[in-house]
Amino acid sequence: MAGNTFGSHLQLTTFGASHGAALGGILDGFPAGISIDTAAVQRAVDRRRPGQSKITTQRKEGDQVQILSGIFEGKTLGTPIAFQIGNTDAKSKDYDHLRGVYRPSHADRTYQLKYGHRDHRGGGRASARETVCRVVAGALAAQLMPFLEVNAYVSAVGEAEIPPDAALNLASREDNPVRCPHAATAQRFEELIRAARKEGDTLGGIVSCQVTGLQAGWGEPVFAKLDAELARAMLSINATKGFELGSGFAASRMRGSQHNDGIRPGQKNATNHAGGIEGGITNGEDLFFRVAFKPVATLLRDQQSVNQADEPVTVKGKGRHDPCVVPRAVPIVEAMTYLTLADHFLRSHTDRIAQINRSQNSTP
Amino acid sequence: MAGNTFGSHLQLTTFGASHGAALGGILDGFPAGISIDTAAVQRAVDRRRPGQSKITTQRKEGDQVQILSGIFEGKTLGTPIAFQIGNTDAKSKDYDHLRGVYRPSHADRTYQLKYGHRDHRGGGRASARETVCRVVAGALAAQLMPFLEVNAYVSAVGEAEIPPDAALNLASREDNPVRCPHAATAQRFEELIRAARKEGDTLGGIVSCQVTGLQAGWGEPVFAKLDAELARAMLSINATKGFELGSGFAASRMRGSQHNDGIRPGQKNATNHAGGIEGGITNGEDLFFRVAFKPVATLLRDQQSVNQADEPVTVKGKGRHDPCVVPRAVPIVEAMTYLTLADHFLRSHTDRIAQINRSQNSTP
Amino acid sequence: MAGNTFGSHLQLTTFGASHGAALGGILDGFPAGISIDTAAVQRAVDRRRPGQSKITTQRKEGDQVQILSGIFEGKTLGTPIAFQIGNTDAKSKDYDHLRGVYRPSHADRTYQLKYGHRDHRGGGRASARETVCRVVAGALAAQLMPFLEVNAYVSAVGEAEIPPDAALNLASREDNPVRCPHAATAQRFEELIRAARKEGDTLGGIVSCQVTGLQAGWGEPVFAKLDAELARAMLSINATKGFELGSGFAASRMRGSQHNDGIRPGQKNATNHAGGIEGGITNGEDLFFRVAFKPVATLLRDQQSVNQADEPVTVKGKGRHDPCVVPRAVPIVEAMTYLTLADHFLRSHTDRIAQINRSQNSTP
Amino acid sequence: MAGNTFGSHLQLTTFGASHGAALGGILDGFPAGISIDTAAVQRAVDRRRPGQSKITTQRKEGDQVQILSGIFEGKTLGTPIAFQIGNTDAKSKDYDHLRGVYRPSHADRTYQLKYGHRDHRGGGRASARETVCRVVAGALAAQLMPFLEVNAYVSAVGEAEIPPDAALNLASREDNPVRCPHAATAQRFEELIRAARKEGDTLGGIVSCQVTGLQAGWGEPVFAKLDAELARAMLSINATKGFELGSGFAASRMRGSQHNDGIRPGQKNATNHAGGIEGGITNGEDLFFRVAFKPVATLLRDQQSVNQADEPVTVKGKGRHDPCVVPRAVPIVEAMTYLTLADHFLRSHTDRIAQINRSQNSTP
Repeated sequence: MAGNTFGSHLQLTTFGASHGAALGGILDGFPAGISIDTAAVQRAVDRRRPGQSKITTQRKEGDQVQILSGIFEGKTLGTPIAFQIGNTDAKSKDYDHLRGVYRPSHADRTYQLKYGHRDHRGGGRASARETVCRVVAGALAAQLMPFLEVNAYVSAVGEAEIPPDAALNLASREDNPVRCPHAATAQRFEELIRAARKEGDTLGGIVSCQVTGLQAGWGEPVFAKLDAELARAMLSINATKGFELGSGFAASRMRGSQHNDGIRPGQKNATNHAGGIEGGITNGEDLFFRVAFKPVATLLRDQQSVNQADEPVTVKGKGRHDPCVVPRAVPIVEAMTYLTLADHFLRSHTDRIAQINRSQNSTP
Repeated sequence: MAGNTFGSHLQLTTFGASHGAALGGILDGFPAGISIDTAAVQRAVDRRRPGQSKITTQRKEGDQVQILSGIFEGKTLGTPIAFQIGNTDAKSKDYDHLRGVYRPSHADRTYQLKYGHRDHRGGGRASARETVCRVVAGALAAQLMPFLEVNAYVSAVGEAEIPPDAALNLASREDNPVRCPHAATAQRFEELIRAARKEGDTLGGIVSCQVTGLQAGWGEPVFAKLDAELARAMLSINATKGFELGSGFAASRMRGSQHNDGIRPGQKNATNHAGGIEGGITNGEDLFFRVAFKPVATLLRDQQSVNQADEPVTVKGKGRHDPCVVPRAVPIVEAMTYLTLADHFLRSHTDRIAQINRSQNSTP
Repeated sequence: MAGNTFGSHLQLTTFGASHGAALGGILDGFPAGISIDTAAVQRAVDRRRPGQSKITTQRKEGDQVQILSGIFEGKTLGTPIAFQIGNTDAKSKDYDHLRGVYRPSHADRTYQLKYGHRDHRGGGRASARETVCRVVAGALAAQLMPFLEVNAYVSAVGEAEIPPDAALNLASREDNPVRCPHAATAQRFEELIRAARKEGDTLGGIVSCQVTGLQAGWGEPVFAKLDAELARAMLSINATKGFELGSGFAASRMRGSQHNDGIRPGQKNATNHAGGIEGGITNGEDLFFRVAFKPVATLLRDQQSVNQADEPVTVKGKGRHDPCVVPRAVPIVEAMTYLTLADHFLRSHTDRIAQINRSQNSTP
Repeated sequence: MAGNTFGSHLQLTTFGASHGAALGGILDGFPAGISIDTAAVQRAVDRRRPGQSKITTQRKEGDQVQILSGIFEGKTLGTPIAFQIGNTDAKSKDYDHLRGVYRPSHADRTYQLKYGHRDHRGGGRASARETVCRVVAGALAAQLMPFLEVNAYVSAVGEAEIPPDAALNLASREDNPVRCPHAATAQRFEELIRAARKEGDTLGGIVSCQVTGLQAGWGEPVFAKLDAELARAMLSINATKGFELGSGFAASRMRGSQHNDGIRPGQKNATNHAGGIEGGITNGEDLFFRVAFKPVATLLRDQQSVNQADEPVTVKGKGRHDPCVVPRAVPIVEAMTYLTLADHFLRSHTDRIAQINRSQNSTP
């Protein structure tokens, strides 16, 4: 399978690059008869849009989503849903000095080594601009599962993080530009980002994600365990360096007697170190995972590198860039979560065939 | 796609459970004409085998690998390679008391909720015994890429870890039962594991993995980035809770000016925070990643749980179990790494079509 | 995807060759909780078995099916079902004279050209013996859909065919060794096959197939139309040269006014030129298609060919071969039909999500 | 896998319907560095375009192909190639009387039964207009394999066909509107089509296809045999009812001694009953196959049918329709052939890994 398709039963295939006519995608396998709120799709895209606040890139893309097929009279047809977003504010000239140059910690060099021919403008296909398509598709997938709620938020920026025992009102994350559901920490994050930008530097951070309303039984052992699929989904997002579910890396430092989630009558676990998945299958508890993002690679500073002729060059970011990617990564993490879950929602429908069969068998 | 197949171009499909006649798999897409050293395959399996030291489970499985097809006169045929490993020391009676009972932090309950019918003996398909098939296939995949070396090792057990600046001789990891390439730390790990076992308790840990000899250009943007594929591979292993590449979660606390890997002439990076992958594609540097394992869920202690009728029960492990899974996880991590890399080695062969075409075109 | 896997939601992966330890397969994606009649599986295999009558090959294979996993206490677990059939009567010496020789109209040469290394014994993986695995899997798939009936039969052998207006009792096809449901024609077929064998020659033929009890709505436009999937399934069987659905090639000679199937109230078509599929989707009518088989390529006569060194050689079949393959092809056509239909039965389950969603939504 | 994707290594995913904003697709897996002649793509589409002659539908679509991504400075990037074709002359009002009505031998009813919601305008997604995307992708795939030539042509219309021993100059098929490479027969075909149209009736026909310049070794046993893949590709085209390779259905009436293709030194077969494929793998001979098309279902005559309420209705085609589809089907058959072959061209690249490995191994 080629690399630009995600999912097994619900399949998203995307195209497009930072510069060029448009980006877009085809979402195939979406069931028929689902009412689609296209305004909700646009709102999800707006949350990822560049230029939405002073701490993000100043590129001004309208990011108007155009749906080309698959929806008729407000409801899905069961046929492929195609969508498209134009590139309207790409400034290709900002990248003229980068033709033939490799920016450190970008994909310029690996694309050149792999393909032998590349679009140097804005990182081409390797640009995080590609993720706008994921947000569109994720917002469609969300409408397939109205019974669940996915809430991602920024839990760390650089060395700062939400205090471990802070009470969080996840909905409040939209009240500040860093998308942190803890007001005091949000302010600290914002200060750190402003300070880094002033120095022409950038920061990493962590996006946490919680899913409520999940049904038990999603996930396909042994290779398509739901946690494995989520890990793949998250590591496919630009700039991610790590994924952990539930107790995550901290689990490695624990004992079984601390870590095990006792099961209580009513089938509710006493704790949720598992993070909602056991044996690769949802157990009905909330899903909880964290994704690590590295600091943005484009610095407004001089850096040493080489060009395609392997000669030393000094590279300095021009363009318009985010000093810290995590606030805009929140809707992307949510989108990939929705896509992964919707795929497994559909996959899980064969689990009840035995019952269906019995009823079909009895009614000739 | 069903859940028991791994890979796109090199596909492993596995079957089997902890108890039952046998486990095995089919490895399809393996190129023809490759000489296979079947003794090397058996050696890889022996490294994962239960009962190999005093700190692992005392289940005694010979784990003799039988190859049934795909190899003729010592070389691969290009047809599917099927293999099988018998279950010879399964003691199903040890599990009679668990019929209808859910062990905490195992997959008993999720399998029941998903499938409505399950094999309660030894965890059935959810048992880590399933991974023996991955080790067989990984050892075959390794022989497809003799130019690279995959070395996983135990870097942390519980609270203890290899000191950050320790000089490591990775080959030496096989000199001790915990597979740690740092002698003093290895001894500490072993003591911790013995102590936990004595208390009927268990420990988590971390497996680190380094790959040398990699070519640049492997990985398929945007959804099949090599790091995404490795994350999926690792999270598909039993008891894993996290994955990080290169700088990993630590990257979230760094600034771009610290984190960026400057490129030097000769195209060798000054640092390797990337962990060998940029934009989802190998850059020719060493690959480096870490995998977190939770403590083993089976305790030789009383735990509170419920049965299928949702009544409270007390569960206590009988059977034979590992007090800490990471020493035996090392060959499994290596196997999944080999399988992931071999898949992308084959996928990368289309990258040079343009050149091939030109030469074919000129010779009619 | 590698070439030895069939299906999307229900996936069969097979292995094994004419000679060698065993053949077998893994059937993944089979829903849990289905009661399996293993004797019925063995009966299906027995219908394909060599040596079952005087007009088939005299190779004597017991073809005992061994199921290794996926079924527990008589019911499927939802985990992969692995099975195996031993090669017990392979006479490899019969093929010593064929090492390095290409038999005309066999796959010897193409396997050599593709793979550079091949198993010359009995055609290796290219042998029709491979289809025994399909019959096992097909017989399992049949048990997933007890509401439908697949009946294939021999409708032509060489120049002879069932008269167009003959009344057929499909069950009666098992009363004669050629599996023709028209007694007089069956006798004629048998005579033709005996005569061809006496001359060391072989015959082609046609297998027709009818499916009753189908639900409307199976098939996935536009590339996985059910007829496209059936065509692929049938052309993947050894020695097939053509496939036609419903009116088939005859449709090309008809006018729309003759060919169109008028729709009557009660939604029953007046005619069934469509053969049960419209727009790639079942319409609830019977499925009807025909598959053309070429004459068996192994002749007990001298034929001109070349060896791997491109030198002229004379080839003469030794071994034990069928003079006409269609009687034994009947259960294979049925098996591939069951597998194709079961795959689409499972795929069709997502079509009703909208309704399911509505009910889930209303019950919090 | 959802149904709107074709291919394994080169994957085409399409979207769009007869009416609606646009149709289009994404071609993923296309190697980098290939020079693309976009005018050649447009020419291929023009050959399929409605309204190109008096014997085709008078719908006037410009069918201008817009390529949105994947090509930079004239050469492919290795990233997905997206393309789009607008619907500019769709007359939705022609279909108002068909809302809720099932046209005989169309997909109206099966789409309704499967999806519960459908676009009744022009057949929606089931319209043959969908095939324009295949032609675009096929024309791109052709440029990946400049060494081969695919020539489809009309060999039968209704009862008339090209005489069996006629000498054909395949290039001459473009000299007449029916795309028949035999001038006298072409005239006969044209007369038949005009006569049928005058009567408000339609005709079926056969498209034959020859491929020259093929390499040996393409095709993946056992389920992805090249003939199986071609059969699937052809039966996925609207209105097809049959596929045969080489000798096809005629093979069923032959004896092995007539049918076998003797192999001559120089590895050239004496005959080509095989049609270029043995054991599912190309043998280097020309590929030859035939595809049967039923008569167009839309008649300008009254037909009996029912509506969604199951009430009897009389249906009469308005709109603009082809009286015989085969002349415009020629470029579609060619496109699906190119796509199938390009996929297997890429798949075959792993066959030479053993040699590549040896050379890589020797150079450290």
